[in-house]
Amino acid sequence: MRSKGRQPDALRPLRFEMDWAPYAEGSCLVSFGDTRVLCAASVEENVPPWLRGQGRGWVTGEYSMLPRATHARTRREVQSGKPSGRTQEIQRLIGRSLRAAVDLKALGERRIVIDCDVLQADGGTRTASITGAWLALKAAVAYLMEEGLLETDPVVAQVAAVSVGVVGGQARLDLEYEEDRIAETDANFVLTSTGGVIEVQATAENHPMTPDQFDQIFTLARKGVSELCIAQLQALKS
Amino acid sequence: MRSKGRQPDALRPLRFEMDWAPYAEGSCLVSFGDTRVLCAASVEENVPPWLRGQGRGWVTGEYSMLPRATHARTRREVQSGKPSGRTQEIQRLIGRSLRAAVDLKALGERRIVIDCDVLQADGGTRTASITGAWLALKAAVAYLMEEGLLETDPVVAQVAAVSVGVVGGQARLDLEYEEDRIAETDANFVLTSTGGVIEVQATAENHPMTPDQFDQIFTLARKGVSELCIAQLQALKS
Amino acid sequence: MRSKGRQPDALRPLRFEMDWAPYAEGSCLVSFGDTRVLCAASVEENVPPWLRGQGRGWVTGEYSMLPRATHARTRREVQSGKPSGRTQEIQRLIGRSLRAAVDLKALGERRIVIDCDVLQADGGTRTASITGAWLALKAAVAYLMEEGLLETDPVVAQVAAVSVGVVGGQARLDLEYEEDRIAETDANFVLTSTGGVIEVQATAENHPMTPDQFDQIFTLARKGVSELCIAQLQALKS
Amino acid sequence: MRSKGRQPDALRPLRFEMDWAPYAEGSCLVSFGDTRVLCAASVEENVPPWLRGQGRGWVTGEYSMLPRATHARTRREVQSGKPSGRTQEIQRLIGRSLRAAVDLKALGERRIVIDCDVLQADGGTRTASITGAWLALKAAVAYLMEEGLLETDPVVAQVAAVSVGVVGGQARLDLEYEEDRIAETDANFVLTSTGGVIEVQATAENHPMTPDQFDQIFTLARKGVSELCIAQLQALKS
Amino acid sequence: MRSKGRQPDALRPLRFEMDWAPYAEGSCLVSFGDTRVLCAASVEENVPPWLRGQGRGWVTGEYSMLPRATHARTRREVQSGKPSGRTQEIQRLIGRSLRAAVDLKALGERRIVIDCDVLQADGGTRTASITGAWLALKAAVAYLMEEGLLETDPVVAQVAAVSVGVVGGQARLDLEYEEDRIAETDANFVLTSTGGVIEVQATAENHPMTPDQFDQIFTLARKGVSELCIAQLQALKS
Amino acid sequence: MRSKGRQPDALRPLRFEMDWAPYAEGSCLVSFGDTRVLCAASVEENVPPWLRGQGRGWVTGEYSMLPRATHARTRREVQSGKPSGRTQEIQRLIGRSLRAAVDLKALGERRIVIDCDVLQADGGTRTASITGAWLALKAAVAYLMEEGLLETDPVVAQVAAVSVGVVGGQARLDLEYEEDRIAETDANFVLTSTGGVIEVQATAENHPMTPDQFDQIFTLARKGVSELCIAQLQALKS
Repeated sequence: MRSKGRQPDALRPLRFEMDWAPYAEGSCLVSFGDTRVLCAASVEENVPPWLRGQGRGWVTGEYSMLPRATHARTRREVQSGKPSGRTQEIQRLIGRSLRAAVDLKALGERRIVIDCDVLQADGGTRTASITGAWLALKAAVAYLMEEGLLETDPVVAQVAAVSVGVVGGQARLDLEYEEDRIAETDANFVLTSTGGVIEVQATAENHPMTPDQFDQIFTLARKGVSELCIAQLQALKS
Repeated sequence: MRSKGRQPDALRPLRFEMDWAPYAEGSCLVSFGDTRVLCAASVEENVPPWLRGQGRGWVTGEYSMLPRATHARTRREVQSGKPSGRTQEIQRLIGRSLRAAVDLKALGERRIVIDCDVLQADGGTRTASITGAWLALKAAVAYLMEEGLLETDPVVAQVAAVSVGVVGGQARLDLEYEEDRIAETDANFVLTSTGGVIEVQATAENHPMTPDQFDQIFTLARKGVSELCIAQLQALKS
Repeated sequence: MRSKGRQPDALRPLRFEMDWAPYAEGSCLVSFGDTRVLCAASVEENVPPWLRGQGRGWVTGEYSMLPRATHARTRREVQSGKPSGRTQEIQRLIGRSLRAAVDLKALGERRIVIDCDVLQADGGTRTASITGAWLALKAAVAYLMEEGLLETDPVVAQVAAVSVGVVGGQARLDLEYEEDRIAETDANFVLTSTGGVIEVQATAENHPMTPDQFDQIFTLARKGVSELCIAQLQALKS
Repeated sequence: MRSKGRQPDALRPLRFEMDWAPYAEGSCLVSFGDTRVLCAASVEENVPPWLRGQGRGWVTGEYSMLPRATHARTRREVQSGKPSGRTQEIQRLIGRSLRAAVDLKALGERRIVIDCDVLQADGGTRTASITGAWLALKAAVAYLMEEGLLETDPVVAQVAAVSVGVVGGQARLDLEYEEDRIAETDANFVLTSTGGVIEVQATAENHPMTPDQFDQIFTLARKGVSELCIAQLQALKS
Repeated sequence: MRSKGRQPDALRPLRFEMDWAPYAEGSCLVSFGDTRVLCAASVEENVPPWLRGQGRGWVTGEYSMLPRATHARTRREVQSGKPSGRTQEIQRLIGRSLRAAVDLKALGERRIVIDCDVLQADGGTRTASITGAWLALKAAVAYLMEEGLLETDPVVAQVAAVSVGVVGGQARLDLEYEEDRIAETDANFVLTSTGGVIEVQATAENHPMTPDQFDQIFTLARKGVSELCIAQLQALKS
Repeated sequence: MRSKGRQPDALRPLRFEMDWAPYAEGSCLVSFGDTRVLCAASVEENVPPWLRGQGRGWVTGEYSMLPRATHARTRREVQSGKPSGRTQEIQRLIGRSLRAAVDLKALGERRIVIDCDVLQADGGTRTASITGAWLALKAAVAYLMEEGLLETDPVVAQVAAVSVGVVGGQARLDLEYEEDRIAETDANFVLTSTGGVIEVQATAENHPMTPDQFDQIFTLARKGVSELCIAQLQALKS
């Protein structure tokens, strides 16, 4: 049984609090159960050097955890002088996932950075980050359109992400930390609201999974992302 | 005139939200107006190597700002590989201020780290950090006493901090960012509820201040800390 | 059309040269067409601190490219003081892929490090690395068994990896650099000889892929890995 | 009793040896008792990027200790890859103290760096550094005026610094290392020859000090700086 | 006796495999016995900032060892964040040795970097590197001349290097690892084909050597370099 | 002609001021003309980990320049996070040169570190460092013998070093900065008082030197070291 009587195919309680970081051009405090991530979008009127003069924009993500987001305190990465391999992997994933949703030509020669800072961590921080980052991005684009800096919305797809896994032989949606820790397989799917596949990252920690198991978790992920996309749209409306 | 009709000797609206970081042994989200800092205390059952075997504990602080705590985005310090000089200075100040309030012998051979993460920055982040950190420390000590790990409270003084400055020739209490930016003098006082002086850091940015001006800001600081200490006690009671 | 008249579902010419690094306990110079990677396994009679005393072993991978493995010279990572995010991601992938193939209990309290140094890079360096690393691992285990340090073979699965992608709408197997650069989708599959799924990493760079496209590349990957596994066994025999 | 029969309100023997570093535009080897600091001023005809084109100059300080300036050898900071928090704090203090004495507009678009290298350390290295740095600065300005690069002296105030503390309940001036180590309170005052307050840094290490004690050390500091300023003027004349 | 019956004044078996790294403008895989170094020359149409606009070129070397080039695995230098002192010393030596052979004016405002990556290490890696690097440099220059980018050959001297040492009182040429480890004196000579002296680095590890011993090793070095130069010319012809 | 009418085979005015750093176990401020280096020896009752339990000691050197030791200010190495290649090369040279003069067995399981800090630099800083470091080492050993920690002197050779070069075709002894800058050949010899050769480092910057030139500079170096050794003995006596 899962904690709080949750069904294997159920998401945790969702919450999207828009504009939580008022200085940012767009922001969202996203909660997947006890996992809470503050996603803040910053618009900068420049692009990385290698992209200059091409009339195209750029979108990236940065990711970090507060030291006491976790059950036991985690050392700050600045102490070891560089982001860990895990952090860099997640940052690259967030950036790629959002760029796949944006027409960079339509964005114009500017950059949007989405900072995803985990305030509380109970599994699924990277999928919550992507899901909230898409909302922060949309809010920043709304700001650019209100300011007359953009005429058309460059966000061409709706993106959300969810974790799935096999725990004790059972496929489960949206793992919390205690499930993630013991899962045989851990996977993250970044999908669009129309079923498009942006990113699949599946890892069998101890023994390989069967093709059947892969199909099961893929199906769960599709269900989860559909529900996330509906909730995103509600958050945007309010 | 100050923003929102504030008097020169008035604090900004205060708010202390205890237990905001539920995984921490003690925590407080402190607001001095639009400055918001999450202070989280972590208890570790060890001490730094140079203190081992002496039967004494240790208390330190760490400080960081979310990239979009500020009006324009600030680069993460992990990108440059080390905490900035400013960050280290503040961390050392937080640690010293709290240690002056604690009987380290009575704490026993354990360490308490207080993480002060600035979620929103509008001036006075270091004084808000110290004021909130004292509350997080008290909450962590209460936890240790409930667990039977401590018998007596090692916190021997009540500590709060406030910034003061001279702006346009006028001494002002609890500067916000726009005032801090143009102040002739910028000072931080860490004081106890009974008038004890723990730390004074006064800096005349452009021209020296007169002894009279120093007396004025010292008086303002005492008034501010008195009010902060009353509010701290109310937060602890609730 | 692909270069040298290659079919969409064909691997590049394969070559496995065993024992190319004679000082290593096991080694293999693997070529996937013009991509050449030297995989060298080192046995160390210790494990990382967090694993000590548990009677289990550990397997990791390290990855690097010679500066002139690429068409234009690439700066050494030591110059920037740390492995890039890409390098760390690949190293973590190699380690996870191999550990999924090994009974760490049966390995005993020792560590095997597989160094994958790319001598020439023409796309697919990470999949060539994993495929060659498995052979270097097998050779190192054979050495341990000959020396009487191991009685049973702890390698419980045969592992190979291949890249697949969608280029101009067409699903293709084992991309070379010029294809990889323009692919709409880039994916790497790490599979076992018996169809088990160890790792899937699929990324749609510009627009999401359809579920159908995902099925197509998955099928291609299975075909590719089957052929790689047959070639691995031949290399082990000789 | 203090060492060598010194009175609580007495400075240690002072010595200012001008032009000790002949390649520098201005220099002074300052001795506060056994504390010896070489202060060397370098003029550079440029300013930091953020100050360019504003017609204003800049003054900064750098601080370091020779490894064997101390009783036991201290590791070089270059070994750990970065200046310590303490070093950065002192550097920032030296820079701020000197800038408060300089009309940066009158200095013109150039930079003066004052290197303070501690050859021997017996307490008070930062106050000796500031006091000697002011002399090195004056000498460098004299050089600029002789060369016809400056017409008027941009140094608008005379600055010196001294440490004070409470040791065994007694307020003392200009602490040496053995006193500093056991002091209840440690404070540094940077003042002008006319009584102006540039910087106050007071720290009660173990228990808070009383307002009375703060008044006493402030009075001692004023006396000490007066004497230092007289000695500075004598050094400039010779 | 030396291994494989080698005479004290004999080189190990030599092998120069030109164009081993086909993407490089010039390359050579050099073997001095079991020491194997891949030397790859990259031409870049720019020079370091301090050399710009002077119409002169630049030549540098970089050096690294694969982790398992050695009998026991060596940790990658990127792990410790910087090249070791030994690596930097060798890189500087390679660069200086090659620049002494090149008319930098005639090279024109471009840079040639020679990467020397040790694939297998059995002593003498730096002398093999220099000897092979000269061949890679010549091949890169030939490429520039064929492309019409250079009219005259800027390589004005033929350079090779060899190690010599005193082992058990006996002067020996071209030490392998086991000899190097126990040598009383270890020296590297970089000489030209016409007897010119480019670089001498002689180190008596335990006790000083006599002037006579120095003469003996110098004589051996001249003999060794003569033979290396003949072999280099043969490699260039084929 | 050389500056101040110096002959090609003459040293600059020498000065050895013993015990300049009173906290060190041994020290010497050495001057070779306008080059001034403070050499301070520190005794530590431990050895590096790889040498523990072998009953042998260790001697190392560290080297640094004050920023304004040079005509134009040099940036501190701590700013770039690591010692430069040049610094590391010199440190390794100082250490090797001293170890060749010491019976490490007789020294016992302790370490002596000689810090060589250049206060003023006018060429020949590394040779002045070695020559002064030997005196600091001797003084530290004298201290150990006085304290009864050593019974016999482990320093078995007298060591000094000098730079030589070819300038405008003329061989010259003990180059100053302006000569060094334009020299065709730059060499450093570390020799013993009895003619033993410890280290030779000769570099022909632009064109190779002839064997004859090498002989000439070697002869000059022997003459220079003889004179340095006589002066060292006088410094020890006083």
